[in-house]
Amino acid sequence: MIDTVLLDGDDTLWHNEPLFAEMTTRFLALLASYHSSEWIQERLYETEIRNLRYYGYGIKSFVLSMIETATELTEGRISGSEIDVLLQFGKEMLEAPVNLLEHAEEAVARLADRYRLILVTKGDLFDQESKLARSGLAEFFDVVEIVAEKSVSTYKALATRNDVNFTSAVMVGDSLKSDVMPVAEMGGNAIHIPYGTTWQHETVSEDALRAYDYRTAASIGEVPGIVETLNGLLI
Amino acid sequence: MIDTVLLDGDDTLWHNEPLFAEMTTRFLALLASYHSSEWIQERLYETEIRNLRYYGYGIKSFVLSMIETATELTEGRISGSEIDVLLQFGKEMLEAPVNLLEHAEEAVARLADRYRLILVTKGDLFDQESKLARSGLAEFFDVVEIVAEKSVSTYKALATRNDVNFTSAVMVGDSLKSDVMPVAEMGGNAIHIPYGTTWQHETVSEDALRAYDYRTAASIGEVPGIVETLNGLLI
Repeated sequence: MIDTVLLDGDDTLWHNEPLFAEMTTRFLALLASYHSSEWIQERLYETEIRNLRYYGYGIKSFVLSMIETATELTEGRISGSEIDVLLQFGKEMLEAPVNLLEHAEEAVARLADRYRLILVTKGDLFDQESKLARSGLAEFFDVVEIVAEKSVSTYKALATRNDVNFTSAVMVGDSLKSDVMPVAEMGGNAIHIPYGTTWQHETVSEDALRAYDYRTAASIGEVPGIVETLNGLLI
Repeated sequence: MIDTVLLDGDDTLWHNEPLFAEMTTRFLALLASYHSSEWIQERLYETEIRNLRYYGYGIKSFVLSMIETATELTEGRISGSEIDVLLQFGKEMLEAPVNLLEHAEEAVARLADRYRLILVTKGDLFDQESKLARSGLAEFFDVVEIVAEKSVSTYKALATRNDVNFTSAVMVGDSLKSDVMPVAEMGGNAIHIPYGTTWQHETVSEDALRAYDYRTAASIGEVPGIVETLNGLLI
């Protein structure tokens, strides 16, 4: 029997990727006189990945990587006022309204009625806490876990911390790499809800996926039903 | 009886403030041709406080505030390569060796022998996890709580989460504002260990302190003894 449902936040309950995509577009426009869009976008991505070990995930990390890319690509010619625009981008992102995905609220409410609900979200502590508060969904969660990285060891640690047995729990999220694969690897249940766009760093090849057993939902609205079905199968 | 000891990390177990002080000094030197040190330092502090609601605490927040202060104070004349220097400051801070305070290791080991140990540290999740790992002290802690802010409501939430009763627990830290006052306000036990320098934002007036009951230790080395005494008194 499933007694615990773990839910990802970004792009599972609320939209997140479009905000980064929009800011990236504005960043490319700001530097358009220096280089081509493709070139800048590649350099930005490289910088973000290179900086993960310093900064981790989140908006502050993204802003710092935008600034670093801008100073590099312009060979230091970027002006203080252009840097200021990038700082403003970051603040805009940090204050952007939290837009829930369609059906997210009723699905979470329905799940909360029957199961212990744990939010498992990756990224910046301050920003994620603020988004959760603004989402209006905080009251539905029994536990909130904000983690720096979603790996097998992170899931093991949070399972121990919260008495979660992954054979009677299911993890739900949009990222195959972060939400599905580590949980499936531990023999746990996972439901993947593909989101329109995925950050390049979170993409996974079909070959790499073949070894994993998980279910797919077309939207968060389908999740309560799938969990009921899982329960039927697992009885 | 005391059964749980909660310990702060920054400037309680490992040195933190000197790193910020050193980088501030280097920041002032970098901008010396634009303004006086006092003026720049005041503007930096104002920017940090103004940005707390966007960024929270931590090194990434500090770097973003240094960059913002630099662009403002130079009216945009700051160069990309000077901005780059600030980004490098941040990376240096994030990779700086974790220097334990004198007696910290043996005190933590001794406390871990007898009590449940909980690390309660404020700031950036990614950075704090990394510091704890590098400190070599992680194995001594039963629970690690990295929180965005240390308020009465934060302490209440972590007490519920971890079955901590503050009448049988003691919080230990260098910040009157974050470690001592909220816990004392809840009727809990607290031990203050003054650190040489305190960030202006964490200072508290003597008047504000008068209402609070807490003990003071000259160093972390005295804490195990004080907890034993508390235990004697509370039996």
